[in-house]
Amino acid sequence: MTDTFRELLSQRTRDMHRNPIREILKVVSQPGMISLAGGIPAPETFPIEELYQINERVLDRYGAAALQYDLTEGFAPFREALVSYLATKQVHSEAERLLVFNGSQSVLDTIGKILLSPGDIVALESPSYLGAISAFSSYEPRYVSIDTDDYGIIPASLERALDQHSVKFIYLVTTFQNPTGRTLSIERRRQIAEIIKAKNALVVEDDPYSDLRYRGVFVPPLHSFAPENTVYASTLSKIFAPGLRLGFCVAPPLIRDWLYTAKQSADLHSNTYAQALATEYICGGTIERQVPKIIDLYRPRQETMLQAMKQRFPNSYRWTEPEGGMFIWVEGPPGVDAEKIYWKAVENKVAYVPGKHFYIHPRDGLATMRLNFTRVDEPAIERAIAVLGNVLRDFG
Amino acid sequence: MTDTFRELLSQRTRDMHRNPIREILKVVSQPGMISLAGGIPAPETFPIEELYQINERVLDRYGAAALQYDLTEGFAPFREALVSYLATKQVHSEAERLLVFNGSQSVLDTIGKILLSPGDIVALESPSYLGAISAFSSYEPRYVSIDTDDYGIIPASLERALDQHSVKFIYLVTTFQNPTGRTLSIERRRQIAEIIKAKNALVVEDDPYSDLRYRGVFVPPLHSFAPENTVYASTLSKIFAPGLRLGFCVAPPLIRDWLYTAKQSADLHSNTYAQALATEYICGGTIERQVPKIIDLYRPRQETMLQAMKQRFPNSYRWTEPEGGMFIWVEGPPGVDAEKIYWKAVENKVAYVPGKHFYIHPRDGLATMRLNFTRVDEPAIERAIAVLGNVLRDFG
Repeated sequence: MTDTFRELLSQRTRDMHRNPIREILKVVSQPGMISLAGGIPAPETFPIEELYQINERVLDRYGAAALQYDLTEGFAPFREALVSYLATKQVHSEAERLLVFNGSQSVLDTIGKILLSPGDIVALESPSYLGAISAFSSYEPRYVSIDTDDYGIIPASLERALDQHSVKFIYLVTTFQNPTGRTLSIERRRQIAEIIKAKNALVVEDDPYSDLRYRGVFVPPLHSFAPENTVYASTLSKIFAPGLRLGFCVAPPLIRDWLYTAKQSADLHSNTYAQALATEYICGGTIERQVPKIIDLYRPRQETMLQAMKQRFPNSYRWTEPEGGMFIWVEGPPGVDAEKIYWKAVENKVAYVPGKHFYIHPRDGLATMRLNFTRVDEPAIERAIAVLGNVLRDFG
Repeated sequence: MTDTFRELLSQRTRDMHRNPIREILKVVSQPGMISLAGGIPAPETFPIEELYQINERVLDRYGAAALQYDLTEGFAPFREALVSYLATKQVHSEAERLLVFNGSQSVLDTIGKILLSPGDIVALESPSYLGAISAFSSYEPRYVSIDTDDYGIIPASLERALDQHSVKFIYLVTTFQNPTGRTLSIERRRQIAEIIKAKNALVVEDDPYSDLRYRGVFVPPLHSFAPENTVYASTLSKIFAPGLRLGFCVAPPLIRDWLYTAKQSADLHSNTYAQALATEYICGGTIERQVPKIIDLYRPRQETMLQAMKQRFPNSYRWTEPEGGMFIWVEGPPGVDAEKIYWKAVENKVAYVPGKHFYIHPRDGLATMRLNFTRVDEPAIERAIAVLGNVLRDFG
């Protein structure tokens, strides 16, 4: 019965897989569970009180225009607001070059749609953001892995991949990477910019986390070193509200034009009302008050987690100490199976994401795990890390 | 320069075409133009005053949940509200079987994504909704045309197409069709239900207009006669606000499951806040006051247009007299080129959509045009039809 119409499925559908993180999240909604899984903002970061006013301003100022069909490119006042916002991050673009999407996830999906024929090659840092792999895999590519270390991808490894393969594009989360929290160093950014310019290669730079910096100094995006070779994608999900599904990108002209055409066919345009809310969030100055509040909430959570890990985790484990973002990346000693540990931890009411899901070849990441510190408060983080420390010790 | 990266484009990108209606709409924004092009609701149908309250209710009732990441399937209270709304249209579904998308356009795109491999066949009524053709064409199908008359598609023609071709699915706008305004008769619905059940075929029934009925009696959707062979897709764009991009579908189990998986990869989920607004729009009873107001606005506009056409158009022209929807379909005598007439009409400050764009083979629709009556008021409609009548006469 449920097999009815199976013969109607397209070839690409057979390559689609459910996002295992979202499947894991179903378990973590059990009562009493402390979840270090997911990459979900703390609900207390949403400017709910301000939204009563912002909504009124949107209806007063834009009225029917906020509710009507609109341009595929995005709501004009929102694109103007984004130009100023992005300039503070050293992403320089005219409003005409910006495109608005349904979250940065749909930027990634549409990039895949316009660039990937079956068998084409995408270069990924290893490990890489799982949602990007899901989005690209719908278009049946092959992947090559770029080696990484604590400073992000290794330029020589990228160069080798570009020499050996006909790579359609390289996908990178350059700052506070998901899943590792690592930031590509500024020296590496310069080197990579030179490589992609020399080889006329295209990088998709995904930058959802760079506003969440708790320490250290701002690192300009790769886009600022090689704007003609970079699609810069970002989102307001981490600094406003993910439920509004607002992503956007700045792309080289031809890529931008085909992204536009593909988006027009796929959904006509993104939610006008949400774009109007975001316009007022940015232009009304709420964003400038809100981002420091978000940082003030997350910084001590991260410090608490790092401190507790130092006390509770076995010496054989290593982890990143990112200057921002949402994640800490843990590597156990060889032989550890972080998915086995996961189920033991879940029994003890603590959840995280086993790191192998972030690898093209899951065996490369058997001993890894991703811990999120933004969603739960400091006491819960301390309890969770204490539990996790005990579970890790039990597994040797 | 703008050719940089052209070699990176996928095979499917070469099949993508910009939606010519949206290109035509760029011309019609000239000052003084009366536009009978587009399929855009009148802005005075948006419940702007009510939205001040609805927004407050959303923030009071759902708070952070309306702003957070949410289920791929859709916001649970919205799906519950849709169940009741759809039952009034004789579409019966549990909330679990409903999926929410970014406008019905993204239902169509995702249907194409999960079902179409290059060269696969889609059966279309002729003429057909252009946006659907755009959405499907991204996945490189071939099309076969089903013949139509004043009562919609002709069952014998559908049967022949299914016998002669391996059809992945049949796409139909069953009520107040775009572009013709025609409604598939209830007898035909019964016959088509029998055919698709007997041949185990799948219909995508797109139903954005059926709430906009000005005369005559309700016709149950094809879905109600063959629920296991029909993907029923609809939207709140015509009865709430298109800028919120809220579409949804009810589909047979296997199709629903793969739509879910494809949507998860493409954009994680649809705008939670917009879904919460729509929940309150439906549950708060605003929809029941608003739809009759919309009908009261559009009915006289349509009557005015039909009356004026009777007075002003040459005898050699025929047109539909739909019982609802947004469009009237005009066919000129053989030899007429409605695109040439279009440019003459635009010179005289009246715009419409030349009908050939709705055909797989544009030559089949050279003498046709689509007129929209929802966007402009009665005096403007009378002026526009008078101008158009003169232009038609000039062309013989």
